[in-house]
Amino acid sequence: MNFKALFQPQAIAVIGASSREKTVGNDVVKNLVNQGFAGKIYPINPKIDQLYGLKVYHDIKDLDQKIDLVVVAIPAKFVTSVVEEAAKKGAQAMIVISAGFKEAGNLELEEELAAACKRHGIILVGPNCLGVINAQHKMNASFAAIMPEVGNVAFVSQSGALCTAVLDYAKDLGLGFSKFISIGNKAALGELALIKYLHQDPQTKVICLYAEALDNAPAIIKTLKKLNRGKEAKAIIILKSGKTEAGAGAIASHTGSLSGGDNAYQALFDQAGIIRAQSVSELFDLASVFSANPFTEIKAVTVITNAGGPGVLTTDAVIENALEMTKLENKTIKKLEEFLPAAANTHNPVDILGDAVGEVYEKTLEVISDDKNTDAILLLLTPQTMTEPVKTAKAVINLRKKTDKAIVVSLMGRDLVEGGVKLLRENKVANTTFPESAALGLGALAKFVAWTKIKEGKPLVFKDINREKVSKIFQEAKAKGKTSFPEAEAMEILKAYNFPLLKSAVAKSASEAKKILDEFNCAVAMKIVSPDILHKSDVGGVMLNVTADNVQNKFSEMMKTVAKNKPQAKLEGVLLMEMAPEGHETILGINKNSLGSMLMFGLGGIYVEVFKDVTFAFPPLSLLEIKKMVNGLKSSSIFAGARGQKAIDQESLIEAIARLAQLATDFPEIKELDINPLLLTAQGAKVLDARIVIE
Amino acid sequence: MNFKALFQPQAIAVIGASSREKTVGNDVVKNLVNQGFAGKIYPINPKIDQLYGLKVYHDIKDLDQKIDLVVVAIPAKFVTSVVEEAAKKGAQAMIVISAGFKEAGNLELEEELAAACKRHGIILVGPNCLGVINAQHKMNASFAAIMPEVGNVAFVSQSGALCTAVLDYAKDLGLGFSKFISIGNKAALGELALIKYLHQDPQTKVICLYAEALDNAPAIIKTLKKLNRGKEAKAIIILKSGKTEAGAGAIASHTGSLSGGDNAYQALFDQAGIIRAQSVSELFDLASVFSANPFTEIKAVTVITNAGGPGVLTTDAVIENALEMTKLENKTIKKLEEFLPAAANTHNPVDILGDAVGEVYEKTLEVISDDKNTDAILLLLTPQTMTEPVKTAKAVINLRKKTDKAIVVSLMGRDLVEGGVKLLRENKVANTTFPESAALGLGALAKFVAWTKIKEGKPLVFKDINREKVSKIFQEAKAKGKTSFPEAEAMEILKAYNFPLLKSAVAKSASEAKKILDEFNCAVAMKIVSPDILHKSDVGGVMLNVTADNVQNKFSEMMKTVAKNKPQAKLEGVLLMEMAPEGHETILGINKNSLGSMLMFGLGGIYVEVFKDVTFAFPPLSLLEIKKMVNGLKSSSIFAGARGQKAIDQESLIEAIARLAQLATDFPEIKELDINPLLLTAQGAKVLDARIVIE
Repeated sequence: MNFKALFQPQAIAVIGASSREKTVGNDVVKNLVNQGFAGKIYPINPKIDQLYGLKVYHDIKDLDQKIDLVVVAIPAKFVTSVVEEAAKKGAQAMIVISAGFKEAGNLELEEELAAACKRHGIILVGPNCLGVINAQHKMNASFAAIMPEVGNVAFVSQSGALCTAVLDYAKDLGLGFSKFISIGNKAALGELALIKYLHQDPQTKVICLYAEALDNAPAIIKTLKKLNRGKEAKAIIILKSGKTEAGAGAIASHTGSLSGGDNAYQALFDQAGIIRAQSVSELFDLASVFSANPFTEIKAVTVITNAGGPGVLTTDAVIENALEMTKLENKTIKKLEEFLPAAANTHNPVDILGDAVGEVYEKTLEVISDDKNTDAILLLLTPQTMTEPVKTAKAVINLRKKTDKAIVVSLMGRDLVEGGVKLLRENKVANTTFPESAALGLGALAKFVAWTKIKEGKPLVFKDINREKVSKIFQEAKAKGKTSFPEAEAMEILKAYNFPLLKSAVAKSASEAKKILDEFNCAVAMKIVSPDILHKSDVGGVMLNVTADNVQNKFSEMMKTVAKNKPQAKLEGVLLMEMAPEGHETILGINKNSLGSMLMFGLGGIYVEVFKDVTFAFPPLSLLEIKKMVNGLKSSSIFAGARGQKAIDQESLIEAIARLAQLATDFPEIKELDINPLLLTAQGAKVLDARIVIE
Repeated sequence: MNFKALFQPQAIAVIGASSREKTVGNDVVKNLVNQGFAGKIYPINPKIDQLYGLKVYHDIKDLDQKIDLVVVAIPAKFVTSVVEEAAKKGAQAMIVISAGFKEAGNLELEEELAAACKRHGIILVGPNCLGVINAQHKMNASFAAIMPEVGNVAFVSQSGALCTAVLDYAKDLGLGFSKFISIGNKAALGELALIKYLHQDPQTKVICLYAEALDNAPAIIKTLKKLNRGKEAKAIIILKSGKTEAGAGAIASHTGSLSGGDNAYQALFDQAGIIRAQSVSELFDLASVFSANPFTEIKAVTVITNAGGPGVLTTDAVIENALEMTKLENKTIKKLEEFLPAAANTHNPVDILGDAVGEVYEKTLEVISDDKNTDAILLLLTPQTMTEPVKTAKAVINLRKKTDKAIVVSLMGRDLVEGGVKLLRENKVANTTFPESAALGLGALAKFVAWTKIKEGKPLVFKDINREKVSKIFQEAKAKGKTSFPEAEAMEILKAYNFPLLKSAVAKSASEAKKILDEFNCAVAMKIVSPDILHKSDVGGVMLNVTADNVQNKFSEMMKTVAKNKPQAKLEGVLLMEMAPEGHETILGINKNSLGSMLMFGLGGIYVEVFKDVTFAFPPLSLLEIKKMVNGLKSSSIFAGARGQKAIDQESLIEAIARLAQLATDFPEIKELDINPLLLTAQGAKVLDARIVIE
């Protein structure tokens, strides 16, 4: 794909250019002309001759010149017909602003458009989008009025209308963009392809997404692990709507997209190291903190403040964002004591008091930046009589040039601190309007950097499995239109993948039963096997805790009793099944959703719905990811032996999850699989029951 | 207390008035003079004669005029000496800005000051505060530079430095204040007294607090139930810092206050109907939504938007804030269909599309405001080419005058929507900068109004208790310096309050045992009673499931066996204790903290620490509050019979909590009390074990 044609075109044709103001076809030409695009602009409209001083062509066919990019704003039904002609003129990218495709129920029209573009090797943005802006190239190929500042944040949005608000907010907040792309219905160009492009774009450091629905979680995870687990990490920050059922419903009626459950998205983000913004406001806070700071590791934060109250509030926020408050070095404290007044707090949060002038901030910053225990500095300022926001901002800017530590400032207020805020922005120092947002940004940055440093092994793969057998079971079932596999059949499938099942076997005689139990070497439940008996225990057909010592007597006894109670029944033998040991009930399963086949592991038993103590992940899974699933449960401390419990056999649990991950990867047709319960015991995990549904 | 002297004084003396700029003593006089205070101002300073055109008195004694209010900004050690003289001149209120009291370790100095003021009937604000502002009275008796707009929000802050930032933010956000009070160390005047005053202040509708520590939760709860459970409710919104341990630590080093655990504060806020802001930014969002809306009930919210993406984000936020999305009436949908384009969404969120002009917003607002299922309207606007923020704002303003429904607007962006935002603010319509904040505000408003409507009965009080007995036990213990009561003694105390204990009695003979069990009418555990036997079960001194039928034999058997195993032991009889039935283990207790004696009820057993499924409340407790404690547990559905469990006897649980509430109220000296476990069964709650610690 020739992204240069999209982002740095030399010549742009606008099909549907209009002389009517406040229309999309007018705005696009106006924006290109007025906002300084240096290349050629060819407006196209059969009815007019001139627009904003440009010659208007009546048809794209009339163009002799080569074009790189076409922007289209004509009714949906005519759009596809333009593609071939555009290709003839050399166009390699097309932005379709026109609506009336999938979102209006016209999926076919959209597919035709996408296919035509693909055929001609044209990158297709949209349809149903706002357009594309490259501030550095002074190209505003959109109908949004604002040309943003140049910066290192790329913004990719599934909602066009959100873009206009984002541009306006960003102007106020001083956030600059490298690329600004409204992807609309994303008939062809989606988030993943753009992420790949933006990752190698030298202007981009942070990629912000607004998304309503994504797909193929495994591909996203794989790509981001490859791209971001190295020196050249670029942060991905996402604002994902449709968190709630009502929200997901609103998406369906808005764009026609089907959004998977939010748990699935959260799992994807966690595995792929994607940072999630919980609101529009958080998106800006995160973008500005990531944009202005090096991606260095952060554990401990030092807060510098001229106000006690905000210092306390921010301390809370630091902790709530999973960071630590730095325990300052003794020599740092001594240095601070040398110049700070006696009433100051020289411990973290460092309170330099309300009358602190710029110089006091500067000295404090110097001392704190030398503190070895400090990974990040969070500087607060409230505008008091003596306060010098501009001088203070300058001190931070100087420090920013000298240190690799993360720095986030919150000059609290508006008019009284405006000069300082402006200076900070111009010099690419992160400033958040409210203090808690600074801590939020640092917390997210710490999380992201930690993720980039993870050394993750390869997915666990077992060879002692019988893939062919499962394949055959599924094929045979599909042939019969059968999709559901209850206990016994599900167990058969799990057995083929060597899951830890309870030992079981059928014995036709007492001596055979004895032989089996000698081999099992454990107590069993003995159940009568008969096609004629439904309620086994009613006729004496169930005995518990049978051992090798007494199995022969018990066998005879059961046969006699059942025969007496149900004389006409055909008795085929007994099922001997290992007694389930004491343990913790958990649930392990597969759920296939719009993002892919997802693994689920959680606490079972009576508290399953109450506490929803459950973790999710998309296979393939490394050992590390499996451990994260296990330790992500609140109950994991109980499994590990807290509260006087016996510690479970962790290895065996990990192996069970790994085997399930392999099964899910091998058979994407599995729609649902529940191992419930998976019993965790000190002697290993045990599958007690299971069921499987395939597509 | 004469609050008029504080908030509407006719004459103010400023002791410590200074000619040196950027000092507190200078700022206060400057603010009073320049910001339009219409009463008399008497600066006092022995060394100067003139200040800002005013005569400066060298000593307060030199004043012949009557004064109402004294503002003090002289070193801490001299402050108390001023009180008597001020009183002589008629002062009934004093604002002590000076620091150097409790926060600097000088608690005694602060207590002297408070006592002196009390003696002379003077309201004391501070010390260590910023001052007081009454915008309507044009009185800025503080050293903050900004005179806020007049509005209906009162702000009370324990942090002075936060005030300057709040004033600056508020100016930008268009929030106006009725009263603005920095209470500093609150040596005398605290939050509760101010709440009582502000509640009857006709200028105040919403009371915002920044607090680091409060005390006496029962008094706050009682007061707010009395004041706010009626027609004249005034919302209390609190920003409470010290949520985390590190934050609480920072408070201690900052103000010397001890903040209790955050659970205790949350319980207080829930019981008292206090709305909690989680950040400075939320404080503003909540204040502006509460300030501009009537306190009418809200369940269902209708979102109107010109942008799908923000509509979805806001739908999520509505649900996440415990509100419903309105299911619009059919006739509403039909009316919308009449004028909205086909591509619009006429279901909630109502998407009127990107090209909606002001008139379309206006028509939509009219239709939605007539919808009977709509309790609140949340209007979103993104600035697109055709968008008319000002016209849209006008439409909302018109509707605001005609309806009692809550309305919150979010004009998204900054410059492009500025005109609309300004208009909304001038006309007291709530507008939040970001859309999710609008939902947050509505959610909090709904919660508050619902709380004001609660018809709460009186606390449950039992008469079948023996208060004197417990009183005697505690008195005797205190006399001996004993504070701890392990199982048996704790049980004795609980028995006096008629808690549901397991039946138990000591029998000295087989026939006596038989008689006891006939009366008990249940199975018991039988344990040998002997001062010489420590490990009862080792010597055969424990038997389970003994019944009236076999107790005589078992008694003889135990006596024989134990005598054989431990011939030298003196056998005094057996303890017969009701067998604990099957049930759910819970914990019920009292924890006394800085806010008062707090009740705790939670899930016990192995998951106690893992899930921390626990609720708190301060007695006295009404039936409703107790039910809230019970149903506040996630596990409550399990207790009620979910997942195939037997439903517990709810009445008996409620009674146990009520009895504990009564015990806690009767004996505030109880520091800790744990009933662990309190077993919940279908046949009633049972205390299995307990311990008590008193002060």
